[in-house]
Amino acid sequence: MENFLNSLKSASYVASSLSSKTKCEVLKQMAIRLRKNRDYIINENKKDLQLAKDNSLSLALIDRLLLDENRIETMAKAIEDISALKEPVGRVLEGWVVPSGIRIEKVSIPIGVIAIIFESRPNVTSDTAALCFKSGNVSVLKGGKEAHFSNLAIAKTLQDVLISNNLPKEIITLVPDSSREAMNKLIKMDKYIDLIIPRGGESLIRYISKNATIPVIKHDKGLCHTYIDKDANKEDAIKVSINAKCQRVGVCNAMETLLVHKEIASEVLKDLKVEFDKYKTTLRGCKETQKIIDVSPATVEDFETEYLDNILSIKIVNDLKEAIEHINRFGSNHSEAIITQNYNTAEEFLNSVDAACVYLNASTRFTDGAEFGFGAEVGISTNKLHARGPMGINDLTTYKFKIYGQGNVRE
Amino acid sequence: MENFLNSLKSASYVASSLSSKTKCEVLKQMAIRLRKNRDYIINENKKDLQLAKDNSLSLALIDRLLLDENRIETMAKAIEDISALKEPVGRVLEGWVVPSGIRIEKVSIPIGVIAIIFESRPNVTSDTAALCFKSGNVSVLKGGKEAHFSNLAIAKTLQDVLISNNLPKEIITLVPDSSREAMNKLIKMDKYIDLIIPRGGESLIRYISKNATIPVIKHDKGLCHTYIDKDANKEDAIKVSINAKCQRVGVCNAMETLLVHKEIASEVLKDLKVEFDKYKTTLRGCKETQKIIDVSPATVEDFETEYLDNILSIKIVNDLKEAIEHINRFGSNHSEAIITQNYNTAEEFLNSVDAACVYLNASTRFTDGAEFGFGAEVGISTNKLHARGPMGINDLTTYKFKIYGQGNVRE
Repeated sequence: MENFLNSLKSASYVASSLSSKTKCEVLKQMAIRLRKNRDYIINENKKDLQLAKDNSLSLALIDRLLLDENRIETMAKAIEDISALKEPVGRVLEGWVVPSGIRIEKVSIPIGVIAIIFESRPNVTSDTAALCFKSGNVSVLKGGKEAHFSNLAIAKTLQDVLISNNLPKEIITLVPDSSREAMNKLIKMDKYIDLIIPRGGESLIRYISKNATIPVIKHDKGLCHTYIDKDANKEDAIKVSINAKCQRVGVCNAMETLLVHKEIASEVLKDLKVEFDKYKTTLRGCKETQKIIDVSPATVEDFETEYLDNILSIKIVNDLKEAIEHINRFGSNHSEAIITQNYNTAEEFLNSVDAACVYLNASTRFTDGAEFGFGAEVGISTNKLHARGPMGINDLTTYKFKIYGQGNVRE
Repeated sequence: MENFLNSLKSASYVASSLSSKTKCEVLKQMAIRLRKNRDYIINENKKDLQLAKDNSLSLALIDRLLLDENRIETMAKAIEDISALKEPVGRVLEGWVVPSGIRIEKVSIPIGVIAIIFESRPNVTSDTAALCFKSGNVSVLKGGKEAHFSNLAIAKTLQDVLISNNLPKEIITLVPDSSREAMNKLIKMDKYIDLIIPRGGESLIRYISKNATIPVIKHDKGLCHTYIDKDANKEDAIKVSINAKCQRVGVCNAMETLLVHKEIASEVLKDLKVEFDKYKTTLRGCKETQKIIDVSPATVEDFETEYLDNILSIKIVNDLKEAIEHINRFGSNHSEAIITQNYNTAEEFLNSVDAACVYLNASTRFTDGAEFGFGAEVGISTNKLHARGPMGINDLTTYKFKIYGQGNVRE
């Protein structure tokens, strides 16, 4: 075990010193190899599918497990896209000269060894391995036991490319033991692993955050609000609210609660209800809302709930202050929007709301790596430190200071 | 308790929205108030000093506790310096427009509530409270019990200024209970506290890192090396090595081990010994070193030890690779230096050595907030994430994304 863990560290020194050109070339070969090994991977995947059926897993879970020609092509294409990303290592983030004469550069470097713990989707294996490789990191992948054979086949495919390029295969390491006990050990190896990124259900993430001794970048729930201010453009208000709730309901950046200023409520809520009815959205409202439109009552529990469903709570507020207080009390610091044409109101909202992403006259659904232009998404962090909100590949780097002197000494 | 913790959160919303002008003004008043309350603080400090004597604390500890006119003036001056720092909140770190038409700005914001846990020096109370205030954060200060009365007097002085400016006094909160149990509770309050910065002895920091459920910025040991390459300028090699070891010995950025390339060893070690003898430095060397100069033997334990004393281990290496491997094995990822005139050698060293600060032809003693031009120092982080190496006030901020649209919705 000690030997295996030390080999991760050694591999991380190799990975971190690879040239940009080598990394791109190896990634392209990985995409080719995935396509070439298609039948092998599909066959291994069938073993997982058979076990899933034998164990009567849900159809949704079985669908998530499934690898076919299209999905393998998507995986290969994703690796090519990652290969084409701008080099994340070696960016000079800042640089200056100090009176003592030394020149200081703050330069991006790989984090080191990153453990990714995920559940059933086997494509996460290749996506995250490629993101970590491109950013000069070693990836330690721990997938769910349902995808055991698929993950092994994908990891082996990628490792073969490492080996044929004379690189240590530990640069992409699959933890063969997919048990909970193996995970419990993994999340306490702070001497060997620099960061854990859990990707999966809320309970898995909570568990890891609570028990790990290694920094965790977590992706908690998203309980997002849109606030329609009294100075809102009505057309924007309706368009953005409908998009934030209805464009896709089961995602963390969808709106769960709509807040409306009392002075615009009667004007805007009737038209909004007509639009929401087209999407068959279930509306629940506070007492004041119920006086304007015909909705069932919204309780405090509603305001505390991330529905992840086609349901919306509505609350009428007296002013901006009440809207901000409601959001800071019930929100999950994920994505929050205001619709207004008033400059001071907008500034106060954007500055006072405590969230990773704050929107003016735009839909919270934009909180997404691809929409932010990051290319490939590592996840949406609900951490406050290191990385917050949509994470791009640059968030898989940290920095060092490089200091240049000519025999300089401290006085 | 719940009420108290919620009041920290509310206070953090007030602190984060203060204008730069207000913050500067309040800090200046705090400096004035410290000077005005000088006699009161010195009297309270005397109670701590008396208890320290009654409990037979060491003279070094008693000296660290002592507050006199000069030390209070230094504290007041430090607050004025912090007030004059460039505003850390609201810096636009990045900004861009994406094809969907939304404009994205990544903007620095306060972290929120920061707990600082420290030992005997009471000046830490005012320094860190001021740094946190300037960066829009609430500080929760937990000092050592030896400085109980002094810390209370300083915190009260600063809080009085908050109150007279109609600001919540919780913006600067001293935990009145200085017991270990109080600390154990504090470091698990992840719902209310965003970051812990321990300042003090190694065992305190280790304990907190291991047991906290809140992110910790730790300041571990510094086991720093200087490597004299075969292509070193001999004059630089001697000047920098002497400075790195002898300018101050009990600090984390002092050199503990000197590595010397075998081809330059006989030339440089004799002259070095003459210089080290002037400083009465105890030299310990590997077998090869012992063949060149008269030193006692250095064991593996020596290479693993942070002496924090006027002792130096010396090892002769065959090449750059061996130097890098030694450093990555025994170093503490703090500060590492190479002395060379060779460009390729320098680049390889700076890129391959795993440390927060890597130096070319300069002393490791420069690893320091003030030397880096950060003004006031928060500490020297040995974390890999969020903040690494010397921490300035900007490291007490995180960021949010502000997204500006004109009714934009996701397709």
